[in-house]
Amino acid sequence: MDLCEKISKLLSNVKKQKPLVHHITNYVTVNDCANIVLAIGASPVMADDIGEVEEMTAISGALVLNIGTLNERTVKSMIASGKKANELGIPVIFDPVGAGATSMRTEVAERIIREIKLSVIRGNMSEIKVVAGEEANTKGVDSMDGIDGGEQLAIGLAQRLNCVVAITGEKDIISDGKRVCIVENGHEMMSRVTGTGCMCTSVIASYAGACRDFYLSAIAGILTMGLAGEKAYESLNPKEGTGTFRARIFDYISNLSAEDIVKGAKVHEKA
Amino acid sequence: MDLCEKISKLLSNVKKQKPLVHHITNYVTVNDCANIVLAIGASPVMADDIGEVEEMTAISGALVLNIGTLNERTVKSMIASGKKANELGIPVIFDPVGAGATSMRTEVAERIIREIKLSVIRGNMSEIKVVAGEEANTKGVDSMDGIDGGEQLAIGLAQRLNCVVAITGEKDIISDGKRVCIVENGHEMMSRVTGTGCMCTSVIASYAGACRDFYLSAIAGILTMGLAGEKAYESLNPKEGTGTFRARIFDYISNLSAEDIVKGAKVHEKA
Amino acid sequence: MDLCEKISKLLSNVKKQKPLVHHITNYVTVNDCANIVLAIGASPVMADDIGEVEEMTAISGALVLNIGTLNERTVKSMIASGKKANELGIPVIFDPVGAGATSMRTEVAERIIREIKLSVIRGNMSEIKVVAGEEANTKGVDSMDGIDGGEQLAIGLAQRLNCVVAITGEKDIISDGKRVCIVENGHEMMSRVTGTGCMCTSVIASYAGACRDFYLSAIAGILTMGLAGEKAYESLNPKEGTGTFRARIFDYISNLSAEDIVKGAKVHEKA
Repeated sequence: MDLCEKISKLLSNVKKQKPLVHHITNYVTVNDCANIVLAIGASPVMADDIGEVEEMTAISGALVLNIGTLNERTVKSMIASGKKANELGIPVIFDPVGAGATSMRTEVAERIIREIKLSVIRGNMSEIKVVAGEEANTKGVDSMDGIDGGEQLAIGLAQRLNCVVAITGEKDIISDGKRVCIVENGHEMMSRVTGTGCMCTSVIASYAGACRDFYLSAIAGILTMGLAGEKAYESLNPKEGTGTFRARIFDYISNLSAEDIVKGAKVHEKA
Repeated sequence: MDLCEKISKLLSNVKKQKPLVHHITNYVTVNDCANIVLAIGASPVMADDIGEVEEMTAISGALVLNIGTLNERTVKSMIASGKKANELGIPVIFDPVGAGATSMRTEVAERIIREIKLSVIRGNMSEIKVVAGEEANTKGVDSMDGIDGGEQLAIGLAQRLNCVVAITGEKDIISDGKRVCIVENGHEMMSRVTGTGCMCTSVIASYAGACRDFYLSAIAGILTMGLAGEKAYESLNPKEGTGTFRARIFDYISNLSAEDIVKGAKVHEKA
Repeated sequence: MDLCEKISKLLSNVKKQKPLVHHITNYVTVNDCANIVLAIGASPVMADDIGEVEEMTAISGALVLNIGTLNERTVKSMIASGKKANELGIPVIFDPVGAGATSMRTEVAERIIREIKLSVIRGNMSEIKVVAGEEANTKGVDSMDGIDGGEQLAIGLAQRLNCVVAITGEKDIISDGKRVCIVENGHEMMSRVTGTGCMCTSVIASYAGACRDFYLSAIAGILTMGLAGEKAYESLNPKEGTGTFRARIFDYISNLSAEDIVKGAKVHEKA
């Protein structure tokens, strides 16, 4: 079975199993994350109080930790949830939003990779560099770094943390430490809408909640978002812009079929 | 005057009086709640700090308490606001989001029904079961329970708490403990967009801020959302999905007329 | 160079420089603020923990303080960020959402104008009256005051605080204490979508991050939002309403050109 067939099958499993995806995430894009999880066919839940996060994680199929608007209170909840997920074998998907922009973000990201066994880390080039302990060039939550050297970075970090590392940017790089996959779907307009990165992480988690192959889940999530961005852009008339583009991303993903994946995927694995 | 005429009149009163609807609600769907209250013609305000919630409630026409992303800090604010609302005779509309999913949610829901006199409780089948002290089957914030037995459940809880109970699902059940009303508007796609339940609660509160008939307000709010969901779905072309559907819900409600209600309502009261 | 030419040039500078705009803002409209900053071509970041706000402000081109859902924790962060911005000469744009609705909001607004040197304050008539220490008539976050006397109010407050004051409403008034500019773009439907005020403040900050002329930035931001509201409304078909209107605001701003500004601006300065 080739990669696209596997992803198509996984998509159909998400729709059948509707895994619950627990998020401790930022308040900027949380609504988008919930809606994208619903669009792909899974079920989102957001809970961040220390009094309930472990219980909520325990009934979930995957956990997203996203530090986009981290604060002292929710960092504690992230650590507690992550540990509970580890204990129960529930996959944890980490989005180190803005790591490198402030020391607090960098330290929290470091703490998360130290204390929690992650299944997938997804970030832009500078965020992943920071997580890997390298010098990076961030601007708030945006990367100012090119994608050069991304493959080696992803492989190395994946090996060190024994997890899947996904770097998204002009092209996307996914590695489990052995294999490397490149996804060339997507459109530049995605960087002009907030939350396309966060949504990508949530879609990865939706897939991860329906299988145990996190490398495949990461590829599937990134491909899904990339295809949606491409198709959303193609659908625009000249007067439409980022507002309509954003709605079309949800439209596309809520209608996504196996055929769309097979036809549209620009994915290749490196030998 | 029949039910639809009453609802039409109430809609026109909302637009005239523009009641202020104070929300202490979750950060996932808060923007949707604000926009739906504006769409129907009322005026939303969100404030959750203990230092101002009582004052904000005191100038409002209705108060929404929604525990979707509850935390220790905002639960205190909910209790304080609810008591202030009771003191001043301002209706309190309660949305027990995810009650049953964690003990914290269940306990907070129990505390709210114990300490605050509610005008309307709206939830899905499993949330209302939990509020009523029954066994329920929840999955995060979604109900896994069918609607069977919903009428007796609504009547019983409404009598016990002396408030209106509304259960939304495949069909919607509203009871004030004596009467029962069934609404059969709505569309399945509403469950694929986050916040349609929260928005329904906010629309009920908008109506409740413009009259003293909370049974009518609950029916009106549920009918309004159901009609919007139906019409939004009918308006979609094959390439459109949940993103456009969501925008159309606001479109429809912002244009809602008395004629739409009379023509579209699938509402009947049971003898 | 006339005003419209200056604004067109400033727009092009925003797109070139992509200033980072740090927000400490409310959770109701935060996603809209992020998306509008991206639409105009700048780069948003939201961070509110006391452990990182100063560092985040230090790397930003402008800081937005918006008290729409203020709480004790974030007020501290606002004060710390504002002071850091002052220290580094970074413009601070203040949106006193709901000032006057509760004593807490009024007091926080007073504290901010006392402790922080602001570049621009933007609010509706009642919010600006409250900031100026006058009697006002607010309803939650909406103004019940007409725009009469607005010019004198804006001039007086601008002189007293040595900053630019912008009052938005049926028409918009901008003053730096000497000059007064009136903007007559906009559409009534903007008041039926939450966050158009907050977004306006964020657009002002995007402009202010790319120049040192805050009077021009305020005019540019208000004109941009006003034009977007007008054009979004004109684009609607009879079945569309506030949901589509909202998406079109982003569409329009993401496509905004110098020509649109020159053709559409209804702006005049008073002698």
